[in-house]
Amino acid sequence: MATVSPTPLLKDELDIVIPTIRNLDFLEMWRPFFQPYHLIIVQDGDPSKTIKVPEGFDYELYNRNDINRVLGPKASCISFKDSACRCFGYMVSKKKYIYTIDDDCFVAKDPSGKDINALEQHIKNLLCPSTPFFFNTLYEPYRDGADFVRGYPFSLREGVPTAVSHGLWLNIPDYDAPTQLVKPLERNTRYVDAIMTIPKGTLFPMCGMNLAFNRELIGPAMYFGLMGDGQPIGRYDDMWAGWCTKVICDHLGLGVKTGLPYIWHSKASNPFVNLQKEYKGIYWQEELIPFFQSVTLPKDCTTVQKCYIEISKQVKAKLGKVDDYFNKLADAMVTWIEAWDELNPTPSGIKPAELPNGATK
Amino acid sequence: MATVSPTPLLKDELDIVIPTIRNLDFLEMWRPFFQPYHLIIVQDGDPSKTIKVPEGFDYELYNRNDINRVLGPKASCISFKDSACRCFGYMVSKKKYIYTIDDDCFVAKDPSGKDINALEQHIKNLLCPSTPFFFNTLYEPYRDGADFVRGYPFSLREGVPTAVSHGLWLNIPDYDAPTQLVKPLERNTRYVDAIMTIPKGTLFPMCGMNLAFNRELIGPAMYFGLMGDGQPIGRYDDMWAGWCTKVICDHLGLGVKTGLPYIWHSKASNPFVNLQKEYKGIYWQEELIPFFQSVTLPKDCTTVQKCYIEISKQVKAKLGKVDDYFNKLADAMVTWIEAWDELNPTPSGIKPAELPNGATK
Repeated sequence: MATVSPTPLLKDELDIVIPTIRNLDFLEMWRPFFQPYHLIIVQDGDPSKTIKVPEGFDYELYNRNDINRVLGPKASCISFKDSACRCFGYMVSKKKYIYTIDDDCFVAKDPSGKDINALEQHIKNLLCPSTPFFFNTLYEPYRDGADFVRGYPFSLREGVPTAVSHGLWLNIPDYDAPTQLVKPLERNTRYVDAIMTIPKGTLFPMCGMNLAFNRELIGPAMYFGLMGDGQPIGRYDDMWAGWCTKVICDHLGLGVKTGLPYIWHSKASNPFVNLQKEYKGIYWQEELIPFFQSVTLPKDCTTVQKCYIEISKQVKAKLGKVDDYFNKLADAMVTWIEAWDELNPTPSGIKPAELPNGATK
Repeated sequence: MATVSPTPLLKDELDIVIPTIRNLDFLEMWRPFFQPYHLIIVQDGDPSKTIKVPEGFDYELYNRNDINRVLGPKASCISFKDSACRCFGYMVSKKKYIYTIDDDCFVAKDPSGKDINALEQHIKNLLCPSTPFFFNTLYEPYRDGADFVRGYPFSLREGVPTAVSHGLWLNIPDYDAPTQLVKPLERNTRYVDAIMTIPKGTLFPMCGMNLAFNRELIGPAMYFGLMGDGQPIGRYDDMWAGWCTKVICDHLGLGVKTGLPYIWHSKASNPFVNLQKEYKGIYWQEELIPFFQSVTLPKDCTTVQKCYIEISKQVKAKLGKVDDYFNKLADAMVTWIEAWDELNPTPSGIKPAELPNGATK
């Protein structure tokens, strides 16, 4: 029997976003943990297909027709036939927090055999500060039984707000196609009982399979790019979002945590199909990483939107020559922010994010 | 019964350095793991006292008289009445690798109840590359059952040589005096089954209790400073070494690992005594961390010695005004390098490290 807190944390402040092309039977296993929360299901592919959702869940479902209806011409920034479409769910949510999970992810067990309430751990991570400016060798200093070690500056012990909680995967690890091909039988069986802040200035490969974030703090950076149908790459949607997000978090003084919670990733995707989707990304990322490592944002980029628009400009200026795809992507990044601001109007009294020259609302 | 590899790794290439003021009964528990190796014991405090070493160990022992005899006037750079004296052992070693451990550290058990061969794990860490340029979310990518995850640039997967392996502690955590006072009963019971590279550009609190390093790659940076008798601070010896070492590793493209192995730290030192030793350090470290975060080394600093001398100059220029202690420390850093080079003459054919203006050998 799974144990659930009597009052689920942030019940009315968090949406669970699930991109899918199939019936959501996987929710049965998550019922004890997810049922109190609202789901936003983004149906990918053929909109005429009916997605069955197990009874008792509170959800809204958007298919491609809905996305087109809601966003109009700006729907061009939302990918089709790729799980990158999930970011539409981030945009239409009205909640402060988002948890997103893939439909081939199930409840994992901790080493004692207990079901892991992944969502609860993500919420704890998000509600707890991050420590990006100095490394703590005993990992998360705010956990029970841990603290800052000798030599950790006291002025840094308050930490900064946490924007992202990146969870991990037991069983099928999140490998690229070449590694899948070379190690088809490798399974992740190592439960590492750690949460840690990814240090400032360090990029990481953010996986969208088991991911939570504070939408108010970082939402507009969580754009999953142009992938899938009609695009030259796939499987870099979450990576793209992760690089942009990390650079912006570093600039704005926000934290990114990784580690617990684990989910059980049930099946490896087809490595041959993945290779086809990834091969340009594998090549391009050798230029993308140095690019993101060298991005600097000016001081007047004080909101996520401003940071994101600035990055889109630098993408166009510096990556456009790598491939014309990045010009398209840079434009889509601007469209994404325009759409975000349209769906999420700034409360009166707060200065709206500036839009770049020529951008109209 | 402890299990030991039939042929211990690096048996003739590693020295174990132990600073102590008492009989080394703690070695009995380590016998299955340490006995094949050579020990360098640095006796702190009263040199007339006899330190008993359990039978069967191969060791050399240096007391203060020996240090003075070996180094002459340069012995002034070696601390007295402080475990910082251990760095004398690094200097007199002729081996490629060093493992240093405190005499209140015992063999820990892994979660399966098996004795942990800490030294063997350190050696594995040191012989395995590091990955300081990008974060791998599944931790050490070279371990069995792990790899680089999707989105990790292929050009970075060879890694860089590992210079330092920083191990952790079960039972008594390495807390500063204020934290010890506030949490006297806290014990570290969390065994985190991870090894990771500390990213480039990130400083960490290096603890000297359970530490291994490649002496050829980084030895001259492992100076534990001026602590203890006649000095205004203590318990910052390993921190100082860690900050200098990390900055130099980052500059030279070397890696620093932390995580496994754990040792069992048996007893907490007196927090009131520690507070007396630490209080200036707690204050000063608020200036030291920004200093080390901003240190940049010029391109012509191509050896550890050159880097270290350059840091000593910057210490004098920028920290001398914090307290005159840092002027003394900067001078001692130069003396340390002079003494190191005297005891470790460069093999013919390799250009000797340059010494700063005015420094003589």
